[in-house]
Amino acid sequence: MEHTAVEGIAATLEDLATPCLVLDADRMDRNIARLRTRLDGLGVALRPHLKTAKSVDVARRVMTSPAGPATVSTLREAEQFVAAGVRDIIYAVGIAPAKLPQVLALRAKGADVAVVLDSVEQARAVASASRRAGTRIPALIEIDCDGHRSGVLPSDRQRLLDIGRALEDGAQLRGVMTHAGASYAARGSDALRQCAEAERRSVVDAATILREAGLACPVVSVGSTPTAHHATDLAGVTEVRAGVFVFFDLVMAGIGVCRVDDIALSVLATVIGHQREKGWILVDAGWMAMSQDRGTRKQQVDQGYGLVCDVRGKPYADLIMADANQEHGIITVRPGSAGVLPDLAIGDRVRILPNHACATGAQHAAYHVVRGTSSAVEAEWPRFGGWQ
Amino acid sequence: MEHTAVEGIAATLEDLATPCLVLDADRMDRNIARLRTRLDGLGVALRPHLKTAKSVDVARRVMTSPAGPATVSTLREAEQFVAAGVRDIIYAVGIAPAKLPQVLALRAKGADVAVVLDSVEQARAVASASRRAGTRIPALIEIDCDGHRSGVLPSDRQRLLDIGRALEDGAQLRGVMTHAGASYAARGSDALRQCAEAERRSVVDAATILREAGLACPVVSVGSTPTAHHATDLAGVTEVRAGVFVFFDLVMAGIGVCRVDDIALSVLATVIGHQREKGWILVDAGWMAMSQDRGTRKQQVDQGYGLVCDVRGKPYADLIMADANQEHGIITVRPGSAGVLPDLAIGDRVRILPNHACATGAQHAAYHVVRGTSSAVEAEWPRFGGWQ
Repeated sequence: MEHTAVEGIAATLEDLATPCLVLDADRMDRNIARLRTRLDGLGVALRPHLKTAKSVDVARRVMTSPAGPATVSTLREAEQFVAAGVRDIIYAVGIAPAKLPQVLALRAKGADVAVVLDSVEQARAVASASRRAGTRIPALIEIDCDGHRSGVLPSDRQRLLDIGRALEDGAQLRGVMTHAGASYAARGSDALRQCAEAERRSVVDAATILREAGLACPVVSVGSTPTAHHATDLAGVTEVRAGVFVFFDLVMAGIGVCRVDDIALSVLATVIGHQREKGWILVDAGWMAMSQDRGTRKQQVDQGYGLVCDVRGKPYADLIMADANQEHGIITVRPGSAGVLPDLAIGDRVRILPNHACATGAQHAAYHVVRGTSSAVEAEWPRFGGWQ
Repeated sequence: MEHTAVEGIAATLEDLATPCLVLDADRMDRNIARLRTRLDGLGVALRPHLKTAKSVDVARRVMTSPAGPATVSTLREAEQFVAAGVRDIIYAVGIAPAKLPQVLALRAKGADVAVVLDSVEQARAVASASRRAGTRIPALIEIDCDGHRSGVLPSDRQRLLDIGRALEDGAQLRGVMTHAGASYAARGSDALRQCAEAERRSVVDAATILREAGLACPVVSVGSTPTAHHATDLAGVTEVRAGVFVFFDLVMAGIGVCRVDDIALSVLATVIGHQREKGWILVDAGWMAMSQDRGTRKQQVDQGYGLVCDVRGKPYADLIMADANQEHGIITVRPGSAGVLPDLAIGDRVRILPNHACATGAQHAAYHVVRGTSSAVEAEWPRFGGWQ
């Protein structure tokens, strides 16, 4: 694959200013290939969720074509990816009516941007904005498959039909979508397969209700990284959305979706101190660099703020960032483990695997791209943040 | 005070794209005046920690002069503030030797940038870099007053003297500094006064050891927002560093340092859905907008991801963001409370007070400035992030 050429980037991980975000592109490529192969076998399309990457360089590697399809969580992501040539986008957060002018502006640029909603009020607002603009904004009805967040219950026939009909009064019912958010708390293959089947059934049931009432429902969309990797049957589903699979993280490893050595993202940090009598090593990456995501806290293995590796990406046994201040990380051996504190001097470097790739990525403005155990930095890929 | 003029900013809070960060400048001004008055009475200087604000506009209002003094947590902050005319800065995270060229470059621009350290290795690196550059980099020895993080124990006479002497071999021993990080877990005036006195005593004791050995120790620096507001005697201390006091937050309210109506920062969000049978209101601000800081979790009142106010900033009784996904917030009445879910429609707006101003601010690129209960947005002040 081609790489974005960047002038004057650091030659090796030893040259980078710390803290910074490191991306192992070999692992990323492997993670992408794994899910693509899986979904090809299941006969469904991949609509990657680009909220994890927030990078045009990463998006081009994870999308199945330069034009998409893709999923986004903010209109800022939509703006950035449309500017980069993506033409098929679902904005997968319930639409606020005040955001419709921006959706219309993106559509006027030639991008098929669809919105998501779960109420008649929103459907009326989308239909009304469509009529005023003389175009049909496509909308997916969000289905609540597991009580996790938003959405219409797949058994709520009346609400589904009311929303569908309100949309058809000017807008376009594109389909149904759901997200098995509760799968992040599942553990083990059996539990994850059950989440995947509940996710599938919820949208297939909702689509059936709509179609039986004479409403078109071409898209049937599911998506979460855990369920995408455990579904064994996606009959009736047309596409899968997933985001964190590109990088994976310790939460995903904890629920059994990946191994630790699949995790493609890490934070490079420098040792800045010791509290030897306590068994602490201090580094210049705190929660600002790692995020405050503590998603492994409730898992079998609590990884603190992250699992510590050497500069080449090999984990030290049971060495974690046990605590963090804004710009200080406290590294210790996991209490009760057999780990041994490594002999790291002031100025030595480590790489720390994150609990949650979406959260840690969001704290950084660029990926520093390496491959495998090489310390050569072959590219710097910009990331963006924000909402508007 | 003058305001930064911004072309084309939204006229009112109803016009802003959500989620976004709102700053009540009346509350900020009051918070700044409160600590200044307090420290004037105690006869010590204020060296505000600008890691909370990361904004030139805010820095100019909180510093006692346009040239400083100031404290920063990253060299990026130092770069930005030096470019804005600040001339007296402590970079208050233990120095990594690889960062010394950047410190020297800032000093070459005429800014007195001092570093912090707690080991002989670092002192030797600073002295060596100073000799090579033909200048004396000033350094403060970090003192560990409460076992919270980094620093030399104030009783460790030998280490203090070894560091001081290593510095004097080319660099400059500027003084001693400490941060009572453990005060964030204290509660009530008595406990906070004890933290403040322990903080003071630790640096005064360390300074005494250095001076009795013939080493100059002009600066004796303490700092945390809780202790700054509870110290009753700062004899021997020359300056106080504090950051979060400018905005305050729910953690500070929970330990009794401020009231909820002193909190100057909030996140503006829009209602995007309901799960009525569960008593949930969904908004378009999730953990990306609020941060994942759950600092009130262990306090007497757990505020979830934030306390919900109406658009003019008045809190609803016991209404909190109980859970959050990346771009979704789930608002509910606090379990077991007397609160009542307000009647909010799709498109209505709320403001959410954060647990931790430093963490929430870091998720945003600008402050939208209002005053009191007015919804007029009188300025937009940019914020920056990153490290380099």
